Amino acid sequence: MGIVEVNFNTKHLTIGDPLPPWNGKLRVYNMRLCPFAQRTILALNAKQLDYEVINIDLTDKPEWLTSKSAFGKVPALEIEEGVCIYESLVTVEYLEDAFPQRPLFPQDPVKKAFDKIIVEASGPILTLYFKVMRFPDTINDETISAYAKALAFIQDQLRDRGTTFLDGSEPGYADYMLWPWFERIRKLDDEAVKIDPSKFSLLLEYIENMAKDPAVSVYLLPDRILEIFHRDYKTGTFKVQSIED
Amino acid sequence: MGIVEVNFNTKHLTIGDPLPPWNGKLRVYNMRLCPFAQRTILALNAKQLDYEVINIDLTDKPEWLTSKSAFGKVPALEIEEGVCIYESLVTVEYLEDAFPQRPLFPQDPVKKAFDKIIVEASGPILTLYFKVMRFPDTINDETISAYAKALAFIQDQLRDRGTTFLDGSEPGYADYMLWPWFERIRKLDDEAVKIDPSKFSLLLEYIENMAKDPAVSVYLLPDRILEIFHRDYKTGTFKVQSIED
Repeated sequence: MGIVEVNFNTKHLTIGDPLPPWNGKLRVYNMRLCPFAQRTILALNAKQLDYEVINIDLTDKPEWLTSKSAFGKVPALEIEEGVCIYESLVTVEYLEDAFPQRPLFPQDPVKKAFDKIIVEASGPILTLYFKVMRFPDTINDETISAYAKALAFIQDQLRDRGTTFLDGSEPGYADYMLWPWFERIRKLDDEAVKIDPSKFSLLLEYIENMAKDPAVSVYLLPDRILEIFHRDYKTGTFKVQSIED
Repeated sequence: MGIVEVNFNTKHLTIGDPLPPWNGKLRVYNMRLCPFAQRTILALNAKQLDYEVINIDLTDKPEWLTSKSAFGKVPALEIEEGVCIYESLVTVEYLEDAFPQRPLFPQDPVKKAFDKIIVEASGPILTLYFKVMRFPDTINDETISAYAKALAFIQDQLRDRGTTFLDGSEPGYADYMLWPWFERIRKLDDEAVKIDPSKFSLLLEYIENMAKDPAVSVYLLPDRILEIFHRDYKTGTFKVQSIED
């Protein structure tokens, strides 16, 4: 067994595009660069499930998207025709309930709760990433210090747990739910998000270990695509078609 | 068996106040008016667990609060001396794992996922409540329409499920997690949050049924306290001491 091969790089469907016919597989409504939808994909990969990716152009959404997610967002996980679950963490927790193989949560309820707290604590990482990308003028001492505090919280958890990954010798819920931020920050050439190796050597080593995990590496964004995204998103000109082959 | 009698109305501890000695009971660090901490209390009540409430003055927090919640917030649930879980939904999901009696989640993983989606969908209710209280000038058509959409989403779920409460003949996770918003809006005299009976009769009936549930009613805020809060919070002058007997 291993990770099932899935085509992630399908065309991003847009206004007027028909809904692809249901083919019986688990289906993720996705956007190739969406860090939230990535969480669903990482859980599916870790559990070695077979699934289909339907990419969505979030700028010009197909009319039928709201029938898949009441919020009109990705990810939405279609589990049987017309039955969809959405919100990234909810989709992952659903997969954990419905497909107990290769559990992502620790068994101990306290550790499980702390996995969720770690994800909550990572909020300022996303905030700073988003501000660097879109609103650099709003970055202040508070944003920067909240970011450093979040990194320290995660590194402390890693040190206390004493394992390669937060969830043990293999990554689990906390690891996969955080990964989308680390994948992006790792490649963003900006002083504000730079992780100081003198303070965060354990965290930096962890991030590189995560990049090598099979569930992660198979979905890593190619450097070329992240570069285009980081360049164009900053100026509000990013079009998803620019990353399609 | 029934709901264990707990003293909710203890003094709100403030800077300089010592940490009360551990007495072996589950302990909630709380604030009497905090809608998030209320979620933890509702779950404890529903499960008929014995616990102790330590109220916190959030304006002048005791120094030791950050040793109970890394975020310095309430709720924090102390399950053994020095072991705390925080973030409202995480505490409730922990209680569900650790005390499976009187389950709050539906058994079916899809319904369980939808309970979480409903809670997510209620976000605009909190947003509007908060704006009415603190930033009425920022209320616009979008805020109002998101609020109406959230109410409709919840009412639709109630109608589809066809039960008295979202989670059946007794309230469950979705019901209790939403309740703090409804309790406050129900008593807030402001046109913006008024729930239109011509559109939302089922929802309004549901809200009144919820108010009568024993886990809810034992912790209902007295009208007098909500009035003081709504009056003083609007002008930024609310002091938690004003609601203490």
